[in-house]
Amino acid sequence: MANLRFLEACRRQPVDATPVWFMRQAGRYMAEYRALREEHSLLEICRTPELAAEVTLQPIRRIEVDAAILFSDLLLPLEPMGLPFDFVKGEGPQLERPIGSPADIDRLRTFEPRAALAPVLDAIKLVQRELAGRVPLIGFVGAPFTLASYAIEGGHSSNFARTKALMYGHPEAWHRLSERLAAAAAEYLVAQIEAGVDAVQIFDSWVGVLSQADYREFALPHTRRIFDAVGRRVPTIHFGTGTAVILGELREAGGDVIGVDWRIPIDVAWERIGLDRGVQGNLDPTVLLGPTERMFSQVDDILARVGGRPGHVFNLGHGILPMTPVEHVQMLAQYVHSASRRAR
Amino acid sequence: MANLRFLEACRRQPVDATPVWFMRQAGRYMAEYRALREEHSLLEICRTPELAAEVTLQPIRRIEVDAAILFSDLLLPLEPMGLPFDFVKGEGPQLERPIGSPADIDRLRTFEPRAALAPVLDAIKLVQRELAGRVPLIGFVGAPFTLASYAIEGGHSSNFARTKALMYGHPEAWHRLSERLAAAAAEYLVAQIEAGVDAVQIFDSWVGVLSQADYREFALPHTRRIFDAVGRRVPTIHFGTGTAVILGELREAGGDVIGVDWRIPIDVAWERIGLDRGVQGNLDPTVLLGPTERMFSQVDDILARVGGRPGHVFNLGHGILPMTPVEHVQMLAQYVHSASRRAR
Repeated sequence: MANLRFLEACRRQPVDATPVWFMRQAGRYMAEYRALREEHSLLEICRTPELAAEVTLQPIRRIEVDAAILFSDLLLPLEPMGLPFDFVKGEGPQLERPIGSPADIDRLRTFEPRAALAPVLDAIKLVQRELAGRVPLIGFVGAPFTLASYAIEGGHSSNFARTKALMYGHPEAWHRLSERLAAAAAEYLVAQIEAGVDAVQIFDSWVGVLSQADYREFALPHTRRIFDAVGRRVPTIHFGTGTAVILGELREAGGDVIGVDWRIPIDVAWERIGLDRGVQGNLDPTVLLGPTERMFSQVDDILARVGGRPGHVFNLGHGILPMTPVEHVQMLAQYVHSASRRAR
Repeated sequence: MANLRFLEACRRQPVDATPVWFMRQAGRYMAEYRALREEHSLLEICRTPELAAEVTLQPIRRIEVDAAILFSDLLLPLEPMGLPFDFVKGEGPQLERPIGSPADIDRLRTFEPRAALAPVLDAIKLVQRELAGRVPLIGFVGAPFTLASYAIEGGHSSNFARTKALMYGHPEAWHRLSERLAAAAAEYLVAQIEAGVDAVQIFDSWVGVLSQADYREFALPHTRRIFDAVGRRVPTIHFGTGTAVILGELREAGGDVIGVDWRIPIDVAWERIGLDRGVQGNLDPTVLLGPTERMFSQVDDILARVGGRPGHVFNLGHGILPMTPVEHVQMLAQYVHSASRRAR
C-alpha cells in the first residue's frame, strides 16, 4: 500500500500528515458523477460492478483523499430481505411496503450476501485492481437502528415516530427485527472484507434521535454484534450524528475509531469516547459551501484541538452536500495535509 | 391565580406537585381541534381572536395541565416583515419568496406588533378572561436563528444548508437579518406581556444544528436581546432541541428556565445549565404513542433524576405528535402530579 496514513491513524499510530476522506466523496457535487447519472439510476450504478467501481474512483482522481469508500447504498440489503425500494427524485429512498406490524417482521427473508449482493463484492474487486494499493478502500453497512428506521418509516423521517412506536410497543418484535438486520449486516460486511476492503465503517446515521437509555436498550446490543463479527480483521469506524450524549455507548458497541459530527468540539468528544480509541471528524459539511477562509480556519481549529495526538482521521460531520463546489473539496483535502504536516 | 405551580417552579420555589404543560397541547391530536380545522385554516385560526382563544382553551378543559399556551404560529411575525407564507398540507409552512440574498434582507419592513399582530393580542385578552386565573397563560416567539432558518429555507429543512451558506458567506447580512428578527420578536413579546401573558417561552427549535462556536457567534447575541427586552417582567423559558452541547450557551443567552429534549438525561442537563436556573422537559414525545407502562416508568425516571429539586417544569422534549392518543396525554398529566406529590 503506497498510502498508509488512513490505516495507521485508525490504529492510532503516528502519521506524517492527518489522513482525510469524506463521506459522500463520490456523488452529486461532481460533474462526472452527474454525467453518469444522466444515463443510469442510482440503483443501476450500485448493481453494476463497473459503474460502482468507476464512481468510487472518481474522487480519487481529483481529490487528495487518503482512502476510497465503496460507492453503494445503505439500503441494499433490504431488498433481498423482502423490502424492495427505489429512489424518488428529490425525496430519497422510498420502500414499496414498509414494515407496519410485528407480523411483517416474521415474513422477512434471510439471504446469502455472496449471491444476493454479488455485484457489490465484484465492484470491490474491480476497485482494488484499479487502485493497485494507491489508497485503502473502505467498505460499509448501515447499523440495525438506522436500517430499521428506513424499513419502518419507508423513507426519511423527521421524528421517527413509527420506528419508536414499534420499538416501545412491541419490544420483542423490535429485537427480532434488529437481530435479523444485524445478522444480515454482519454477514454482508464480512463478505466485503473477504472481497478485499481494507477498513469498514458502520453508519448509524440517525441514532442521535434516541435517548441514552433507549440507545442502550434498543440499539447497542445489535450494533455490537456486527463489530464482534468483524473482530480484528480490519480497522472499524463507528459513525453517527447528534451523538454528543451517547459517545460512551457508541464506543461500548464497538469501533476502533468513533465518528463525530460538528455539534461537539472534537477534543471534548475524544475525552468522552476515551483516548484509547481513534476519532473521526468533524467539520460541518455546510462550511464547504464557502468562503474558503472560514473553512481553513475551522480546519486549524480542529487540528489545534486534536493537538497532533495519533488517532485522528479528518472527515466531515456528515456527507458532502450536492451543491458543494468541487474546488472547495480539493482545497480542503490539500489544506488538511499541509496544515497538519506543518504542525508536526 | 388559583394554580401557581407553574409560575412558582419557574422561580425555583417549592411546589406541592411538579407542574406540567405540553408543547402543542392544543393541536391535531385533539378531535375538537380537528373539527375546527375542517372549517378553518391554521392561519385563519391564528388571525381570529375567538378561534385562537377557543383552541388555546381546548386542552385546559380536558387535560390536567398547569398552564395554557397561546395557540399561534412561530412564523406570524414574518408576514408583516414582508415574508408572506402559507401552510401546505402535509408539508408545513412554505414562504412565497424566501430570502435568497443580502439585498432581500435590506428590503424587509419594520412593523408595529400592536397593529400588525393585533388579533394575537386580542386572543390573549379573551383567553385570560375565560381562564379567570385558573392557570397562567404562556406567550411565545421564535428565536432569531429559528426564524431566520425559515425565512431563508422557505420551510422545513433537513440540513439548513442555505441558512448556513448565508451565515458563513455574508456574516454582516446574517447579523442584520438577526437584529431585525430579534427586534421584531422582542417588541412582539413585550406586547404579549402587556396584553396579559403570565410567562413567555422563546422557541429556538432548530438551533441544535449549530456548533458551539457558531451558536456563540451567530445566534447567542441576538437571542439575548429578546431576553434583555423582557427583563424581569415575567418568567422566561428558553427552548431548543439537540442542544446537549450548547446548554451553557443557551443559559448565557437567557431564560429563567432552560428547556431540554430527551436526548440528554435531565439531571446531566441541569448540571450543565447550572442549578441556579430552572429546567423544563424532557420526555420523548414518541413515548406517548404507548404503551402507558413505559410512559409512566419514564416519568418515574425523570422525577427521580430531578429528586424534588425546586425549579422543574415537566414537559415533553418537543411538541405532542398528531397521532398521540388524547387519553395518554390525560393520563400523563395526572401521573406527573400524583407521582411527584407522592415523592414529596
